[in-house]
Amino acid sequence: MAVVSEHSLERIPSRQGRAIRLEAQSVIEVVNTFGSQVLDTWAFAVADPTEHMSMEHTRSVNSRWRVGQGTVFVSNRRRPMLSLVEDTSAGVHDVLLPACSPEIYRELGCTGWHASCEENLHAALAEVGLAVPFMPGPLNLFMNVPLLASGALDRQPPKSRPGDRVALRAEMALWLVFSACPQDMTPINGVLRTPTDAHYRLV
Amino acid sequence: MAVVSEHSLERIPSRQGRAIRLEAQSVIEVVNTFGSQVLDTWAFAVADPTEHMSMEHTRSVNSRWRVGQGTVFVSNRRRPMLSLVEDTSAGVHDVLLPACSPEIYRELGCTGWHASCEENLHAALAEVGLAVPFMPGPLNLFMNVPLLASGALDRQPPKSRPGDRVALRAEMALWLVFSACPQDMTPINGVLRTPTDAHYRLV
Repeated sequence: MAVVSEHSLERIPSRQGRAIRLEAQSVIEVVNTFGSQVLDTWAFAVADPTEHMSMEHTRSVNSRWRVGQGTVFVSNRRRPMLSLVEDTSAGVHDVLLPACSPEIYRELGCTGWHASCEENLHAALAEVGLAVPFMPGPLNLFMNVPLLASGALDRQPPKSRPGDRVALRAEMALWLVFSACPQDMTPINGVLRTPTDAHYRLV
Repeated sequence: MAVVSEHSLERIPSRQGRAIRLEAQSVIEVVNTFGSQVLDTWAFAVADPTEHMSMEHTRSVNSRWRVGQGTVFVSNRRRPMLSLVEDTSAGVHDVLLPACSPEIYRELGCTGWHASCEENLHAALAEVGLAVPFMPGPLNLFMNVPLLASGALDRQPPKSRPGDRVALRAEMALWLVFSACPQDMTPINGVLRTPTDAHYRLV
């Protein structure tokens, strides 16, 4: 692994999305700089963006409902796309809930426009000239959604700490998209309900 | 509720899919005639088939990872689409795994063509003049996928019995699609690994 200085860190601005092109076998490290920022994450094959990272297929191929270090995320065609190769956090990530969207902010009582991970995904793809007519379920890095025995699920602040890192290896040439979740009406991005920047670097 | 004779039962042929148009507030009863047939189930809004039943959004709106009698399944726009209003079975249904697809049968060692729920969905929609450029995660009625504390998931034969019924109420005008799952290489459709017909009727 190359020695990389702090200066090579790139910013994922608070409440925004970023599309990043990764070649096969390259590794990207994503840093939860302030410790409690959820990052909705998607991947699309460069060769054909209708091939996308799929949480359903990932559960099927791995025979696991929980993901963590070592999980290989696969596409809707069951091909490896992204491996979670290192994780310094508590290892709590969500793969069950959708991206936040304009509709959920209206449900929560927001009357004007509110940034959302759904809009961030489409905007980030548009910046690199891509559009997809669907919305895959995301890998919600650092998002803490405990499943209760009753069948209910809870939404808790992240268990990650400032500087926690997750390293992801691309298993094919892909567009990776991160959205620094703009949710500020629930504690999903921490008890302060204050979305923050996050950072990444290629390693 | 109208008195409906046995003769009004319609067939979902073994290994095949059917698209059924439902008006808002109509109820359809689906019968697991032989007791251990999984039915992959999708819904699409008549007004705009890009609005589809979504398991991620259903988990979010209901704050539950497990579904059952009383669950209101919502669309990717968080609007009610389908309610599970009655269930005579053990109530075990899956909302985590994808439809079976050509790729999984190749993984399992199948060398020729094998029917799949993914192909069945697209074929059933094509029969009514529809096409969608995506593949929503299905509601897998009667599919028994226990979640283990270890983070693993298992695949077991259905807990339903011959004649068990699930009643679903349409909450908007929609196209409902059932696929009688053709999986015959694992025990997901019962220990005999023999996909069967199922039936439905409008009530």
